[in-house]
Amino acid sequence: MKKLVISFVLLAAAMQSQSQSASNDSAMIASIYREVMLHAECYENLHYLCKNIGHRLAGSESAQKAIDWGKEVLEKSAPGNVSLMPVEVPHWTRGSYEYGGYSIDGLQKEIAITALGGSVGTEGKRITAEVVEVKSFDELKELGEEAVKGKIVFFNKPLDATLINTGAAYGGGYPIRGQGPSEAAKMGAVACLIRSLTLADDDFPHTGATSYEKDVRRIPAAALSAVASRQLSQDLKKNAALQFSLQLSCEAFERTMQANVIAEIRGTEFPNEYITVGGHLDSWDIGEGAHDDGTGIVQSIEMIRTLQAIGYKPKRTIRAVLFINEEFGNDGGETYARICKESGLVHVAALESDGGGFTPVGFNCDINDTQYELVESWLPILEPYNLFRFRRGGSGVDIRPLKDDRIALFGLSVDGQRYFDYHHTNNDRFENVNKRELELGAAAMTSLVYLLDQSGIPASK
Amino acid sequence: MKKLVISFVLLAAAMQSQSQSASNDSAMIASIYREVMLHAECYENLHYLCKNIGHRLAGSESAQKAIDWGKEVLEKSAPGNVSLMPVEVPHWTRGSYEYGGYSIDGLQKEIAITALGGSVGTEGKRITAEVVEVKSFDELKELGEEAVKGKIVFFNKPLDATLINTGAAYGGGYPIRGQGPSEAAKMGAVACLIRSLTLADDDFPHTGATSYEKDVRRIPAAALSAVASRQLSQDLKKNAALQFSLQLSCEAFERTMQANVIAEIRGTEFPNEYITVGGHLDSWDIGEGAHDDGTGIVQSIEMIRTLQAIGYKPKRTIRAVLFINEEFGNDGGETYARICKESGLVHVAALESDGGGFTPVGFNCDINDTQYELVESWLPILEPYNLFRFRRGGSGVDIRPLKDDRIALFGLSVDGQRYFDYHHTNNDRFENVNKRELELGAAAMTSLVYLLDQSGIPASK
Repeated sequence: MKKLVISFVLLAAAMQSQSQSASNDSAMIASIYREVMLHAECYENLHYLCKNIGHRLAGSESAQKAIDWGKEVLEKSAPGNVSLMPVEVPHWTRGSYEYGGYSIDGLQKEIAITALGGSVGTEGKRITAEVVEVKSFDELKELGEEAVKGKIVFFNKPLDATLINTGAAYGGGYPIRGQGPSEAAKMGAVACLIRSLTLADDDFPHTGATSYEKDVRRIPAAALSAVASRQLSQDLKKNAALQFSLQLSCEAFERTMQANVIAEIRGTEFPNEYITVGGHLDSWDIGEGAHDDGTGIVQSIEMIRTLQAIGYKPKRTIRAVLFINEEFGNDGGETYARICKESGLVHVAALESDGGGFTPVGFNCDINDTQYELVESWLPILEPYNLFRFRRGGSGVDIRPLKDDRIALFGLSVDGQRYFDYHHTNNDRFENVNKRELELGAAAMTSLVYLLDQSGIPASK
Repeated sequence: MKKLVISFVLLAAAMQSQSQSASNDSAMIASIYREVMLHAECYENLHYLCKNIGHRLAGSESAQKAIDWGKEVLEKSAPGNVSLMPVEVPHWTRGSYEYGGYSIDGLQKEIAITALGGSVGTEGKRITAEVVEVKSFDELKELGEEAVKGKIVFFNKPLDATLINTGAAYGGGYPIRGQGPSEAAKMGAVACLIRSLTLADDDFPHTGATSYEKDVRRIPAAALSAVASRQLSQDLKKNAALQFSLQLSCEAFERTMQANVIAEIRGTEFPNEYITVGGHLDSWDIGEGAHDDGTGIVQSIEMIRTLQAIGYKPKRTIRAVLFINEEFGNDGGETYARICKESGLVHVAALESDGGGFTPVGFNCDINDTQYELVESWLPILEPYNLFRFRRGGSGVDIRPLKDDRIALFGLSVDGQRYFDYHHTNNDRFENVNKRELELGAAAMTSLVYLLDQSGIPASK
């Protein structure tokens, strides 16, 4: 009986301490949200990045400006604790001239087009040829070399609008952008056009990396807007022999050195356990790289600012990392992971925001079952902030190379219906980011960092 | 033993039938989403409503056009089953001229202003007076009549940005718009200005109904944009005696007759059990009434179209109702409920969409615990569509008068961070509605209607 009483008392004490800790956590998360919703600087920072620096493809001068700016802004919240980590990146330029068009019914039609990232140029000339329209690699192969040789292959496959998660729809179109040009070249094509990877029905072409296969001829490759794709397809039905002209002025240069920007707040109890939070500082070279990924950058900076502003002393070492070159080879993420491993630096968790600055709905996670059990137990204190779930699968491209048996990886999960409307276009602009949505993302990220810092997380696997 | 075996067999059969029904439900919901995401007409319908009819305040000619249009569109999906229900509505006009401004430091400043709905006009003259700025009714009363008499009261209270649900923030400012003018008049004020009920920091003034208290002098009342409010407040700090001029050309007319539009699909098993789905056809008289509530209208129409397109034969009678005059006295909702009750018509459920055409996250519900248990059991088949919750509280203004012991009330719950940026402004336009977000809302509504129709729902209380 005595034993039972003692057990009961211990249990009651444990329960009380657990509920006390949950109530402390709730209070701390409320103060994080309060600080962010009333005093955040992320929207202003995004304005500066988009309007004073603009797009910033890795290897470009503006990417270098963004690195300098990132260091300067982080210095304000983490004075003396900001460093640059050199990263080798590619250097490719679109050039100033892009043309796509054809004449039909006596009309000359110029259509919305943009080179895919990494495409070769057309050497100052226009390539003019017939167009072969297909929906897939299989369809292309069935046509046979004879039908394709000397022509321009046009992959015209819309993303699957029935998929609720737009990322999954994008994933379905991704192989065409990456491998389409080489598959077309193997069949003897002289250039490759693709329908932009978008769910919107508008006239913005979407760029993004393509990758030439080794030992396959490199042919110029460009994306057409959704509207231009439909128009070209209709016109091909009228005249299958229409002559399409393409001119691109892309150029590739030697790889060059840029840098990841790293700010940290040292842990007070477990300074050798690291939590890294980041986004990517580079963007494509059209638009302003607002949602992709200016928002992830300013949210990561905001996380550091907020923790300092509320006077939080973390147990573990917390870093904001502005990765360079996610878009064009993931050099920043790869280099960061390599150097961390070489230095024997132990990461317990990493969190990335790279799905746009939209309303957060929870977190994606690349974690094991034990870790999942822990983070799921946090849902009751996150639900008042409309954070509904930890969804298995997906975290972030930049942090993925950190994956090992120890680390728990997270990605901010947002209401991403509009993301691929803006993604890699001239329309990815500051004006299309909502202040509150951006701030809610920053507050959600900071809250997760707080919870991870307080509780730690068991090792993966 | 035999009994036990029989029980077990019965239990297994029940479980199998339950899981079979869940899998049927999943398949049906998948086909609803497929139909909507590939063939929806709601976005086109919204385009027509916004661009060819435009804003449509109850009592106006354009509201009448919207009623005729609504009937015509519904006839396509429910031929012979569309009717009009006469509703008496107010008739008020803003008039063509609105002015607010003052001079300071030798500069004449005109600022963004709009009359509150129902405001009296200024009888063709400008009211010019000093301004008294306050944040609350208490602050106003503390000033005393002497300080207020003959002046313009300016309620300058921003909404609470720390509230995560923007509806709650709006609710906090709502009393000032409704009662502010009468409270000011009681203290002897000659006019009333309010800061717009918005969380955005922009130059759009937001209108909305005000309501004069009986036997209190009716003074002109207008809303200033957030930017104009800040500017006026700053200028009042420089010169507390600045003379503000206000001119409004509002007029009130006799009440007039318009109508709710009702389409129905008769139930095959329980035709006397009704499920009503709706939004409100009227809007404020600036902008295009896109999110408020053109989206709810076209989603309700889409629900009927989709059920017909997939060949669904409902057990219960399903209605789409386009309510007239939610904004200015809820006449459509009140009349509908009264006439349904007078006719002995039994409603088992109603669903409204009036939170904007944004990504749905679940449903608000005004239901009892037994009903809640049932609807919550549907979450596993709704979660793949990012429908995360049934949240207690809140359904819709138009359907609320239907409340009795039988009915379960629901409101589409959306990612509402941007709603009050557009709400009641010149910026509530078609261009600010995203096609997929709108469609996902229509599919979510249709799915809930399907589940309610299949299972029925126990009586309330």
